[in-house]
Amino acid sequence: MARIVTVAAAQLGPIQQAEGRQSVVARMIALMEEAHAKGATFIVYPELALTTFFPRWYEEDRSKMDHWFEAAMPSAATQPLFDKARAFGMAMSFGYAELTPDGHHFNSSILVDRNGTIVGKYRKTHLPGHVEFDTERSHQHLEKRYFEPGDTGFPVWNFEGGLMGMAICNDRRWPETYRVMGLQGVEMVVLGFNTPSVNSQRGAEGLDDRLFHHRLSCQAGAYQNATWVVAVAKAGTEDGNHLMGGTLIVDPNGKIVGELDHEDDGVLVHACDLDDTVFGKETIFDFKRHRRTEHYGLITERTGVGAPLGR
Amino acid sequence: MARIVTVAAAQLGPIQQAEGRQSVVARMIALMEEAHAKGATFIVYPELALTTFFPRWYEEDRSKMDHWFEAAMPSAATQPLFDKARAFGMAMSFGYAELTPDGHHFNSSILVDRNGTIVGKYRKTHLPGHVEFDTERSHQHLEKRYFEPGDTGFPVWNFEGGLMGMAICNDRRWPETYRVMGLQGVEMVVLGFNTPSVNSQRGAEGLDDRLFHHRLSCQAGAYQNATWVVAVAKAGTEDGNHLMGGTLIVDPNGKIVGELDHEDDGVLVHACDLDDTVFGKETIFDFKRHRRTEHYGLITERTGVGAPLGR
Repeated sequence: MARIVTVAAAQLGPIQQAEGRQSVVARMIALMEEAHAKGATFIVYPELALTTFFPRWYEEDRSKMDHWFEAAMPSAATQPLFDKARAFGMAMSFGYAELTPDGHHFNSSILVDRNGTIVGKYRKTHLPGHVEFDTERSHQHLEKRYFEPGDTGFPVWNFEGGLMGMAICNDRRWPETYRVMGLQGVEMVVLGFNTPSVNSQRGAEGLDDRLFHHRLSCQAGAYQNATWVVAVAKAGTEDGNHLMGGTLIVDPNGKIVGELDHEDDGVLVHACDLDDTVFGKETIFDFKRHRRTEHYGLITERTGVGAPLGR
Repeated sequence: MARIVTVAAAQLGPIQQAEGRQSVVARMIALMEEAHAKGATFIVYPELALTTFFPRWYEEDRSKMDHWFEAAMPSAATQPLFDKARAFGMAMSFGYAELTPDGHHFNSSILVDRNGTIVGKYRKTHLPGHVEFDTERSHQHLEKRYFEPGDTGFPVWNFEGGLMGMAICNDRRWPETYRVMGLQGVEMVVLGFNTPSVNSQRGAEGLDDRLFHHRLSCQAGAYQNATWVVAVAKAGTEDGNHLMGGTLIVDPNGKIVGELDHEDDGVLVHACDLDDTVFGKETIFDFKRHRRTEHYGLITERTGVGAPLGR
């Protein structure tokens, strides 16, 4: 038996500050055409796929950044992407900055079915970075300034014949992200990222280390929950700021089955058998037989570090 | 500033069924002498360090297995190990099968200070395997038959100038293990293991995959909690059953700083600076700034997989 989802991880190269949504959407459509030609029926784009990674810039008046946000989805600029997806019968997921009607700002991503209907929305939970300008960093990372932490939690949806979940960028470093979805039986986690290739607080931590931590987190999340993980980069140099690549697909055994080796627009297509999740879920990670929730209390009782419990 | 703990990961080669505790303790003392000569002040031995991995054998009458358990610690057989440790001023940790005065059976490990005093005890939480003889497995793994799940949780102790925790074997595959200790500020997790080099339920999963999963789990736990992890094998062929090696030390950045490349008795010594944990704990894994416990509820509410929450 096999339940195949042929997924395309659609990496975007850099988006410069001056590039408009229309241009970006045209690039996304070109990637969709390539994905379709390669047999994909589900395409995954990165975090903040429609714009440059604007949280690298400090703006005292936050409302001046609202032009990076989408007040509607689809919008006039993105409607051609939805139209093309529907024409291809292609499901999709992508990330964007969301401004709600009542004025809330989130770093969001959506699941769109083959009919072009938005069937799921996720809002980024683990916002990295800081709120105020930080003179000690080599570059700013102001996600905590421009976004609120997501209010969705980590839902899993019946989608494309499987159980699908979303995460965004820094979420992938947190085992809670995968576990909450694993406890809903997730079979595929799709996530996009914009990750600077240098740690702003430790210059010695460069591209190799950053890619290592990225792979490690995705692979552990996949293995420990017996799920596919599809991780998609926005990569390359945006207005002088370098973002790493590392678009990859991990199987439910924790192995990387494919990874892009460049920082440009490109697709990585893989036929993922959702039934490959069964062995792990029924044996070593059969949660109902092996988990001991009576000893996990601190995970929800404590946010930060507290006193040691020994003695 | 540096807070160095020079630790010896003391791997044991195979212990045959016929080998007595006295002989094993003599081997452990020889390893301690080597560790001491190499400057170690804390030695870590594997899970069930005093005996063969007896849960591979099915015994209908469980009480007939009690001879593999320790009713006292130290015991007559292990007293020479405690004496030698005290003489060297060497702290230690090792695992053994524990039979309590009131008849409970645990897979336990202890922390012993430089004076030979047991200051911490941990009882294995995540027991792998099964309760009854399983004809479909290539070999039996009856930990759920002979042990009860641990009742200690995952305490962290002030020990050797740092914050230390313990885990045992299969615990290392569960991110909850590290996180519960991470929320107590753990700086070093020591763990022993006896891991068959073939998956009893999927023969194609052999030594390479088993080592891969082992490393992945230890490295992710270290990185995501900014802690040292010291993982120590009992390795080699016990009565025809092969256990993998892979004794290793992981730094708080998730990197393996040393790994033994054999399956015999041997020590791996590393000077671990506990202050190497500070950067991760104060930046990307500063839990109090970044964790969002309001979205982690399922981790303690659900033991096994339940319904997806999307829609």
